[in-house]
Amino acid sequence: MESAPLYRQLAQHYLHAIETGVLKPGDRVPSVRTLMELHGVSLSTALQACRQMESDGLLEARPRSGYFVRHRRHKPLAPIEEPVATLPDPAQYVGIHERISAITARGHQQPVAVNFAGACGAPALYPAQGLRNAAARALRLHPQLFGSAADSGGHPAFRAVLARNALLSRITVAPEDILVTHGCTEALNLALRAVAQPGDVIAVESPTYYGLLQILESLGMRALEIPSSPQTGISLEALELAAQTYDNIRAVVVVPNLQNPLGSIMPDANKAQLVAWCDARAIALIEDDCFSALAEGDAPLAALKAWDRSGGVIHCASLHKILAPGMRLGWIAAGKWQARVEMLKYSQSRPNELLAQMAAAEFMGSGAFERHLRRLREQLRSQRAQVAQAIAAEFPAGTRASNPNGGLHLWVELPGSVPSEAVFDQAMAAGIRVVPGVMFSNSNRFDHFLRLNCGTPFTLEIERALRTLAAVVARLADKP
Amino acid sequence: MESAPLYRQLAQHYLHAIETGVLKPGDRVPSVRTLMELHGVSLSTALQACRQMESDGLLEARPRSGYFVRHRRHKPLAPIEEPVATLPDPAQYVGIHERISAITARGHQQPVAVNFAGACGAPALYPAQGLRNAAARALRLHPQLFGSAADSGGHPAFRAVLARNALLSRITVAPEDILVTHGCTEALNLALRAVAQPGDVIAVESPTYYGLLQILESLGMRALEIPSSPQTGISLEALELAAQTYDNIRAVVVVPNLQNPLGSIMPDANKAQLVAWCDARAIALIEDDCFSALAEGDAPLAALKAWDRSGGVIHCASLHKILAPGMRLGWIAAGKWQARVEMLKYSQSRPNELLAQMAAAEFMGSGAFERHLRRLREQLRSQRAQVAQAIAAEFPAGTRASNPNGGLHLWVELPGSVPSEAVFDQAMAAGIRVVPGVMFSNSNRFDHFLRLNCGTPFTLEIERALRTLAAVVARLADKP
Repeated sequence: MESAPLYRQLAQHYLHAIETGVLKPGDRVPSVRTLMELHGVSLSTALQACRQMESDGLLEARPRSGYFVRHRRHKPLAPIEEPVATLPDPAQYVGIHERISAITARGHQQPVAVNFAGACGAPALYPAQGLRNAAARALRLHPQLFGSAADSGGHPAFRAVLARNALLSRITVAPEDILVTHGCTEALNLALRAVAQPGDVIAVESPTYYGLLQILESLGMRALEIPSSPQTGISLEALELAAQTYDNIRAVVVVPNLQNPLGSIMPDANKAQLVAWCDARAIALIEDDCFSALAEGDAPLAALKAWDRSGGVIHCASLHKILAPGMRLGWIAAGKWQARVEMLKYSQSRPNELLAQMAAAEFMGSGAFERHLRRLREQLRSQRAQVAQAIAAEFPAGTRASNPNGGLHLWVELPGSVPSEAVFDQAMAAGIRVVPGVMFSNSNRFDHFLRLNCGTPFTLEIERALRTLAAVVARLADKP
Repeated sequence: MESAPLYRQLAQHYLHAIETGVLKPGDRVPSVRTLMELHGVSLSTALQACRQMESDGLLEARPRSGYFVRHRRHKPLAPIEEPVATLPDPAQYVGIHERISAITARGHQQPVAVNFAGACGAPALYPAQGLRNAAARALRLHPQLFGSAADSGGHPAFRAVLARNALLSRITVAPEDILVTHGCTEALNLALRAVAQPGDVIAVESPTYYGLLQILESLGMRALEIPSSPQTGISLEALELAAQTYDNIRAVVVVPNLQNPLGSIMPDANKAQLVAWCDARAIALIEDDCFSALAEGDAPLAALKAWDRSGGVIHCASLHKILAPGMRLGWIAAGKWQARVEMLKYSQSRPNELLAQMAAAEFMGSGAFERHLRRLREQLRSQRAQVAQAIAAEFPAGTRASNPNGGLHLWVELPGSVPSEAVFDQAMAAGIRVVPGVMFSNSNRFDHFLRLNCGTPFTLEIERALRTLAAVVARLADKP
């Protein structure tokens, strides 16, 4: 992994100066010419650095005067607090899907002008044309493609490129041990069905992705929610406590990298410890690793499976958030459960059709994939920063937010226990969709949280919508 | 539905003459010129009729002499006998998927020269190029297709064409009440999960499609096998008997039209009676209607759902066998369970991607679809006839076979209880794949049956493979 480009390093330098108060709001930053001389960089690098800081909302350009540090109306957002590693709630699941389904249904009753509820980025963030061209080529080269059924677990070229890519996450897996699925959702279904039965207890992060709660409920399994840190993910202490109380935990499901909704990233030491912990107890460890390509930083993040020695880790991932929201391409490497997962996939939906796999294989096999990811990470970084800044500026005091090192989402804690479902309803009335915190737990612990998607380029419309949302929150916060 | 073309009617006339012995093997049939005069048809019609009878193996052309009735070495195949409507075996399911998986695995250990085990026709039978062109057009018109996720139960144009098509099966359903799935396999999974729980008893036909037994086993449900007629499908008497013994039947799953493997078609009276029977007992009725477009005859076949008044019939179907083996496009109309099925689909695999739906919608909305189906039915009819004739000519005396009114398969009963798994193994050694009868039941009732796919154009290679298969059967039949 290459280090950050020069202009980013330069911007970072001045960001640090602003954060530490060396440069104060209203201060003029050195001119482009001075930057060139001071740092020995080219005109274009100096310009790019300034423009990035401007698009991140740190600087404002004043015509014929140069760049100035912007005034912030509020202090930077406080981070989300660490959870207390207490015992989880007793395993329960009744009604979660009704709650989720009801809110989802209400969310789709009318079109919205601004959608902060999406699971991936705006279409413009993805290389749809490049994928389209690759698909068109595959159709030209294989005119008989729709005439015969795929008869294996995935297209060889696609599995090969996935196996090569897995090396970046420090996973060594043979192409034929990767089973292509209809998205990560199907992969998670297969993983859970392979290792657990209806009635079994599954440990999950808290808060966790509501899709997982819905899957567990639909399979008749019970979610045991383990407190999780906005910085380091699932609390291993809380998991140990839970295991002492519940002796029937069958599997642990976690998102180790850029957890949804927290954005946390498990440190390598925690990853190693969790794998060993599960292995020692013969508890299956299922990882949902859909976001890791969206993490910033110098080195790609390792998957839990990197520490797997006994085949007890099931790795699930997809292209949905990182490459192609319009393709249902996921995969699973299920270790010692691979044969059972293959049987379940065959009996649940048969092998995936080939066209999307062929197109994705071509694109991912080219340099365009890494270029796309680099651009995507940069866009998301800038968009997250702008949304966070707008929240800091507009939301009532006491609002907190996550500050993830990558990804699509911000996890926002509202002040004064503002009920997120009321925010959801009033925002919908104003043409704005958000995901209320109630969706992320079977408990009421996150009722005053919101998940905001930052996948859409920051426009005046987005800025206005955040102001409207802030007003909704403020109104509800003022209520006795 | 138009009636058969003139040349088919003419061929039918002479087939009847051969079957009734009016024309005997070796007899010369009237010359083309005579046919034109006798029947008042054009030269091309008379020629087409003769060529069809030749390709069906009824006539042989002798240079400069005309067409002659071919010698048959054996009498026509005896039909499969009707089952006795006794009580079914006690519900059992343990181990079926292992048996299926083991045979499937052995079947894929080596490539085969001739495959009689396929689930659909040869690639040449499907309009892959037309679908390819439609897909390429969709990609041109929607360059951003892969950039955003599908957010509903199916592409509107595809659902609309499916709803229009359903009218032919006498089903009235709104486009938005059709949920697009990953093939009929996913539709059946969703249907069963919507109406039943692990441990529940599900009545199925016997013999039945092994894919269904595998689905039931993987969902922890128990198959109760109901004797079924090669002519009229599931025995309603046997079902009534079963219901008197087992009071916990949760659902009935049937293939009403061209049952797999029997090829039976339920008469309309039976369909009406089964729907009413299930309705009166609040038992869900799930139909797998994947084959009906392959049925011959003047009018399309009605689906069970045509008689549904209470929403108790779940209709499942797909394009896999009739249009595009290379697309995983199925659908489900689940009546009163629609909301639950939609929730399960969302939580199992999210909505299908759009490209294949768009391509299929364009093709199915054009006249090309009906032309394709007419040609496909005609090819399958001819291929079934030729395989049946080869079996009659080559297999040991006592061999029986189904004579379905359409579809892809023949269901062959071997004489003297020849074990089909031994046939399978020895055929594999000779480079030929068949599906042994053991796959179609949890009992041993069909151990001496084979299912033969007739979806491949009849060539010398196919003829030779059938001769080899006959020798295998004969050798095993001679064993004490």
